[in-house]
Amino acid sequence: MALEEFIARYKLSESVYVTRPTMPSREDYLRMLAPVWEQRWLTNEGPLHARLERALAEHMEVAHLSLFCNGTTAMLLALQAMDITEGEVITTPFTFPATAHVIHWNRLTPVFCDIREDTCALDPEAVEAAITPRTRAILGVHTYGFPCDVEALEAIAARRGLRLLYDAAPAFGVRCKGRSILQYGDMSVLSFHATKLFTTAEGGAVATRNADWDRRIRFLKNFGIADEETVIGPGINGKMSELQAAFGLLQLEQVGEEIARRGAVAAVYRERLAGVRGIRLFPEPADATMNHAYFPIRIIAGEYGADRDALNVALRKCNIIARKYYFPLCSHFPCYADLPSADPRRLPVAERMSAEVLCLPIYGTLSPDIAATIADAVASFPDVNETDEQR
Amino acid sequence: MALEEFIARYKLSESVYVTRPTMPSREDYLRMLAPVWEQRWLTNEGPLHARLERALAEHMEVAHLSLFCNGTTAMLLALQAMDITEGEVITTPFTFPATAHVIHWNRLTPVFCDIREDTCALDPEAVEAAITPRTRAILGVHTYGFPCDVEALEAIAARRGLRLLYDAAPAFGVRCKGRSILQYGDMSVLSFHATKLFTTAEGGAVATRNADWDRRIRFLKNFGIADEETVIGPGINGKMSELQAAFGLLQLEQVGEEIARRGAVAAVYRERLAGVRGIRLFPEPADATMNHAYFPIRIIAGEYGADRDALNVALRKCNIIARKYYFPLCSHFPCYADLPSADPRRLPVAERMSAEVLCLPIYGTLSPDIAATIADAVASFPDVNETDEQR
Repeated sequence: MALEEFIARYKLSESVYVTRPTMPSREDYLRMLAPVWEQRWLTNEGPLHARLERALAEHMEVAHLSLFCNGTTAMLLALQAMDITEGEVITTPFTFPATAHVIHWNRLTPVFCDIREDTCALDPEAVEAAITPRTRAILGVHTYGFPCDVEALEAIAARRGLRLLYDAAPAFGVRCKGRSILQYGDMSVLSFHATKLFTTAEGGAVATRNADWDRRIRFLKNFGIADEETVIGPGINGKMSELQAAFGLLQLEQVGEEIARRGAVAAVYRERLAGVRGIRLFPEPADATMNHAYFPIRIIAGEYGADRDALNVALRKCNIIARKYYFPLCSHFPCYADLPSADPRRLPVAERMSAEVLCLPIYGTLSPDIAATIADAVASFPDVNETDEQR
Repeated sequence: MALEEFIARYKLSESVYVTRPTMPSREDYLRMLAPVWEQRWLTNEGPLHARLERALAEHMEVAHLSLFCNGTTAMLLALQAMDITEGEVITTPFTFPATAHVIHWNRLTPVFCDIREDTCALDPEAVEAAITPRTRAILGVHTYGFPCDVEALEAIAARRGLRLLYDAAPAFGVRCKGRSILQYGDMSVLSFHATKLFTTAEGGAVATRNADWDRRIRFLKNFGIADEETVIGPGINGKMSELQAAFGLLQLEQVGEEIARRGAVAAVYRERLAGVRGIRLFPEPADATMNHAYFPIRIIAGEYGADRDALNVALRKCNIIARKYYFPLCSHFPCYADLPSADPRRLPVAERMSAEVLCLPIYGTLSPDIAATIADAVASFPDVNETDEQR
């Protein structure tokens, strides 16, 4: 098959992005905003903000949840709240840039550590090996919603006297071993960015069981202001507005259906891509419920007959906008590349995943027919008999 | 007059806060959001975001303006964009906590410097005296919308090879010497918080004439991402969503009228408080147009017969919620109090202003009658013949 034929066969009439938010009705949004207009209370822990905090804490079964303007600022202050003023934080290079950046902004040094092949989560053995006398915390990421080895990491953190934080940005609604994913570790951070399963356009949250940390986080996200005359430390503005909270309250009503619809899309991909030579699907964890926020696949170039990047370029020509989450690795950014832990030889699995993974479009309003076309395009691409250069 | 009589005479039926946003109509907001719903484009430089950036740049006569989730993050990245990696930044202690905190978050040391009595802005002579070989930048604040000595500071910065930034959070729409206030210095930062003259609930912006800095700021507010495969440095999430931008576009339509209405309130205060013993009004600068975002007065306790705090408490009993902007000084926060520059003996004017200034309620929908009542309460309070303790 020539490339032109491939494109003619699979090209979608409109661009299909890796994700798209499912919107509440505009009229419902207007209705939700009525008290905001009435009271002219636009931000600073408004009534809708309070409602959303309660609703999310209940939905996610966590004692304390504090809303933020975005997930990055939430993670920035989660670390700051722990009062770790110097040293190292062990984390994964296979993540969105924010994870490493918030360590840097807290004047701490990220120590990159390799990941597991089946979940892309931190490899507990590698974590243990990376601990030094300067290590203060472990910051794991529940990549693609696959839970980290929460028990192994908890045991390491307890034994070595380290704080354990989770970047749970990809894991809204995930349950692990019968409990909400947010119940693991000292603190977890969520992102409600527009690309996330549950969104407030921009937004995020910190969840913790610890009332003292929660209180400290609330001060820090309001400039460190504890009361009109007391500033406890170098806080920042991390506040979520009522405009965002109103959107979130409506999103929460539909998130269960959104997960179910995404599950149907995932099922199409799984069915059509299972057994395709050179394509590896990630196993669904046995002890966790998934949120289907992402649908990552691995392209094993030697078997598939083409590499991930070639497939990605061809898909774009078909208006299928997949994403190379996560390429490049954080350890390749110029600001971190000189760290000893950024040496690619220490991160073989992360390096491989970064070259092999492609996240296919998945969202609640993506029709299963389109998902079938995307899967078929992925399965057929190796039949295109042109050189990489022609592609 | 007994305190009870004072309260009976001046108590307002509803609390009047120091400020309140003037809201666009909810229906207009719904209409403005129509394309957001249609395209499901909620953030990441959306179309309304682009419109608001252009409109504000034009309104404020500045070459480049980049929107932010809030003013603090804007200021954080304005400093970061200048690539100052160590050293000192000279600033005022008489400001909102964010000004000092963003210096700290950039791993730089704030050096507090005294202010002028007539404008509460940095005293250029004190700035010059505070310069050391470690000084990298001057961060001035146009407090209450009163412009800093822009020419004197520019001369110092040029002569000593320093960057010059302005926290223009209080100065939306102010013009100085015939030009927009944003045209002075290397960069200016705005806040669009709900307490500001122009608001997007939460929001802010960086304005600059320098295209390179503007480009760098745009990368940094999106995690340092320059393109899908390049991260230029430790950025953060500073993005403003479409929900906020839509609100801002409607606010901009009414900001001229808002300033005019506030001007009328200010005129009532000026008329009724002029010549009251112990009350000092700040002179309106001859070479600037004011935005009436604040109405600060000074209480000279020895002449007035009571101090600022006693007046403030009594006003609250009358449902008049004035604010002690800025008490405490940033130099009193525990995180900065040990800096040599935080020594109160070096900051006599700032210390005095922090004890004397009270900001009276001012906003477009505050009726001149209520303003008159507030002014009369302020003027009459010294007649209350009780001790401070009874008050």
